[in-house]
Amino acid sequence: MPISKARLAHIVFESDDKASKAFDVVLLLLILGSVVVALVESVDAYWQKYGKILTTIEWVFTIMFTIEYALRVWLTRRTRGYVLSFYGIVDFLAVIPTYLSLFIVGTQFLTVIRALRFLRVLRVLKMGRYLSEANYIGDALLASRRKILIFIGSVLTIVLVMGTIMFIIEGPESGYTSIPMSMYWAIVTLTTVGFGDITPLTPMGKFTASLIMLMGYAIIAVPTGIVSSEMSAMRFKRRDDDLISCPNCHAEKHDKDAFHCKYCGSKL
Amino acid sequence: MPISKARLAHIVFESDDKASKAFDVVLLLLILGSVVVALVESVDAYWQKYGKILTTIEWVFTIMFTIEYALRVWLTRRTRGYVLSFYGIVDFLAVIPTYLSLFIVGTQFLTVIRALRFLRVLRVLKMGRYLSEANYIGDALLASRRKILIFIGSVLTIVLVMGTIMFIIEGPESGYTSIPMSMYWAIVTLTTVGFGDITPLTPMGKFTASLIMLMGYAIIAVPTGIVSSEMSAMRFKRRDDDLISCPNCHAEKHDKDAFHCKYCGSKL
Amino acid sequence: MPISKARLAHIVFESDDKASKAFDVVLLLLILGSVVVALVESVDAYWQKYGKILTTIEWVFTIMFTIEYALRVWLTRRTRGYVLSFYGIVDFLAVIPTYLSLFIVGTQFLTVIRALRFLRVLRVLKMGRYLSEANYIGDALLASRRKILIFIGSVLTIVLVMGTIMFIIEGPESGYTSIPMSMYWAIVTLTTVGFGDITPLTPMGKFTASLIMLMGYAIIAVPTGIVSSEMSAMRFKRRDDDLISCPNCHAEKHDKDAFHCKYCGSKL
Amino acid sequence: MPISKARLAHIVFESDDKASKAFDVVLLLLILGSVVVALVESVDAYWQKYGKILTTIEWVFTIMFTIEYALRVWLTRRTRGYVLSFYGIVDFLAVIPTYLSLFIVGTQFLTVIRALRFLRVLRVLKMGRYLSEANYIGDALLASRRKILIFIGSVLTIVLVMGTIMFIIEGPESGYTSIPMSMYWAIVTLTTVGFGDITPLTPMGKFTASLIMLMGYAIIAVPTGIVSSEMSAMRFKRRDDDLISCPNCHAEKHDKDAFHCKYCGSKL
Repeated sequence: MPISKARLAHIVFESDDKASKAFDVVLLLLILGSVVVALVESVDAYWQKYGKILTTIEWVFTIMFTIEYALRVWLTRRTRGYVLSFYGIVDFLAVIPTYLSLFIVGTQFLTVIRALRFLRVLRVLKMGRYLSEANYIGDALLASRRKILIFIGSVLTIVLVMGTIMFIIEGPESGYTSIPMSMYWAIVTLTTVGFGDITPLTPMGKFTASLIMLMGYAIIAVPTGIVSSEMSAMRFKRRDDDLISCPNCHAEKHDKDAFHCKYCGSKL
Repeated sequence: MPISKARLAHIVFESDDKASKAFDVVLLLLILGSVVVALVESVDAYWQKYGKILTTIEWVFTIMFTIEYALRVWLTRRTRGYVLSFYGIVDFLAVIPTYLSLFIVGTQFLTVIRALRFLRVLRVLKMGRYLSEANYIGDALLASRRKILIFIGSVLTIVLVMGTIMFIIEGPESGYTSIPMSMYWAIVTLTTVGFGDITPLTPMGKFTASLIMLMGYAIIAVPTGIVSSEMSAMRFKRRDDDLISCPNCHAEKHDKDAFHCKYCGSKL
Repeated sequence: MPISKARLAHIVFESDDKASKAFDVVLLLLILGSVVVALVESVDAYWQKYGKILTTIEWVFTIMFTIEYALRVWLTRRTRGYVLSFYGIVDFLAVIPTYLSLFIVGTQFLTVIRALRFLRVLRVLKMGRYLSEANYIGDALLASRRKILIFIGSVLTIVLVMGTIMFIIEGPESGYTSIPMSMYWAIVTLTTVGFGDITPLTPMGKFTASLIMLMGYAIIAVPTGIVSSEMSAMRFKRRDDDLISCPNCHAEKHDKDAFHCKYCGSKL
Repeated sequence: MPISKARLAHIVFESDDKASKAFDVVLLLLILGSVVVALVESVDAYWQKYGKILTTIEWVFTIMFTIEYALRVWLTRRTRGYVLSFYGIVDFLAVIPTYLSLFIVGTQFLTVIRALRFLRVLRVLKMGRYLSEANYIGDALLASRRKILIFIGSVLTIVLVMGTIMFIIEGPESGYTSIPMSMYWAIVTLTTVGFGDITPLTPMGKFTASLIMLMGYAIIAVPTGIVSSEMSAMRFKRRDDDLISCPNCHAEKHDKDAFHCKYCGSKL
């Protein structure tokens, strides 16, 4: 079956016909499969028992991803651009750890890079209909980035101040061994996570902790309000196309239902 | 008291007169009663003490539900359609476990199916005035399903990446025995549940955990924003078709039920 | 200083001049003081040490509240109406426990009623400017009560089903000793409280728990969205006064900016 | 390099040219550096090891801040106004603890004041573009302060009542040693923090705790709704004065900058 290089590139990079869609589905399954294997490998009991089989499967996945990576490098028009792009680096990191494990023995650090293969799922999914929706969320977060930064800044200030106060009040006997440790506790408390690994023991500490909890419970409303109002506003935002410009004075941004220019009075 | 089959079907399936409403209320009480019995049975102390009485009550409920199920099968116009419908299956699962327990000894699995009887409450409640409200919530969730899917996808990506990182940082000594275990911890932390069964012990782990907590605290704003703005939008939704423009003064946005322009008084 | 009964009634029931405002402030301080004493009394160490003093203070407060209660009964125009009203009962419950403690020895139950004195604060605060704001929140919750009921119903269904499933998966060894206990755990988890007194131990249990946590994290958006959109809608809701009725055809609900009746075209 | 006093004052107080911006950046780094040193010092292990170096660095920072404080006092036009202003006091508190530590030995209380140096970051950041955004959040919170106060009041009432009830139900055996302790637990539970240091042991206690958790889960929607709707409203706020009505066709709601009616074209 002689396929042209252009056809192959289409299959690998696009997803608008049968063959290219099939390629994407197979790739998706391979990525998910390889991530599952990485997860299973990390369980000591399974590793002891099925270590050899898991290593073999791991190599099969790696060789397949290597072929895919080689294909992409060969098929892309701008090889350099691809290799240095975000996806190019992720694709490279998806294959290199297994080869490195031949030389370096027992580094768990390679595992984390292998689990990053999951990020490749984004590539496969990104092509479809979810793009505009993801942009919608992204736009709302982007539009409110300054407000969110201020919010995070305020949270960090609260955490530093309250963490220090709790360190003074409770001290090392209750587990608040240092200000950073107290700040960790303040974050655990303010975000309403509440592990319970460190808890205040003195009445004064419990009172201060109560204040932090009530603050955390109340200020969660702020980021929510920011994102909610931003998303509501985006729905009402009219595109520039919806606004009519005046043929006489060229003033723009007339309402859609206007029949006369609001500046010069001439017919639109 | 000779009642026609049509009348009986009306009582069983509708709820618009005295008899059919009474039927619904009795059914509701039976369902709630049977669920309460299932709950009480699961408490070992009560089972030891009142096992025999509970079994008897259980059989009374089962026989009543069996009669109801037989009635429905007999009375419905499309027997096959009912038996294979969602409610038909739930009704069947409500009676079968007790009969099965005659043959299969000691399987707790039957209990879970028995508690599913509670789902039958939905059937009884569904008829009333809550339907449109439930639809409202359902529509808002449906309209934002893609955004919610993207959100859940992002959360899972964060969980996988942060779980793996925490596995590398903390390792099995702190309870992070495998990547799936670390991911479980990451979910516990990101969702601000914070059981405290596993907690970071090293400074670096605590720092990374703090980041996850702050992320979880901030990104809760995203689904909230999505649903809030969706619900707000649904209230204001009014298609362009609903508004009429005046042929005389060209003013737009007249109400649908208007007969005269509200500005110049000319006929619409 | 001979004050008329009418003047005294004004001081006790109103709060629009110096004397009546002073009465309210003194009453507020007495209520807060008596609640603080009740809280202090409940601490065993303080009770052992200062029991006698606390009892004396308690009696002073009780006698003062008794005088106040007697005054209200005497001064009110509709004695019966007051005695049986919500505030009448709260006022009565504020004084009776201390007298009962003369006859009944050692019942802690009386304490809870004494702490309910705090509810009397509402009476004092209710007069002021916070009323309309409280109504605003109340109206928003009232308008969305059906949606909130549906939400709570859904939460309870999830709790029952997931609680039962966890009881099957984990069983009594992990602390899930009965379905009600499992449901308690499911509520702790779904609401993101996460005490950690019971936690899943098996991999399957941890996986199911993760699902419950993600559900809890996502569905918190629903009540928030309901209340947010309700409050936004209430801001835009025009009062009936804002709408003009037509002097010719008597049709109502014309927009504020209308100059002609939208039904008959006559001038407004 | 002879710089005039006016130029120096410009560098210290403004941030609109190279020199003054550089001054701000250096000051920002000094503040962050001094806070990091305070955090490191609080870790006992580091203190034991590097105590001398840390003390030296601390003195360097203190002397620099002293010089800066002296400069500000000298350069400002209204010395008294500055010294007694919020920032003046924070600047003073930033230098005084280190000097006091020469006379008072071993008081940890000085540390908390030293960590408050972080508040000086606000001064440096306040100048820039984040001001209007911070005002936006501040305005939204200010506009809804009464609603938030009512909300906090309701939460405290729930905490007091539920705390007392749990104290009666569970008692000292389960850790609910007093009403204040029970209230602390109620706050931990209602805010969904859930440390797990105290948990209900009796079935009745678990049932009541479930109610509190569901309440906490539901009422978080209230502050969120308040802030969300306030922020949405602030975006749409446009006073009636901002809209002009047409003297010819009486159409209202023309933009403020319009010169001709957008419907009939006549002059406004």
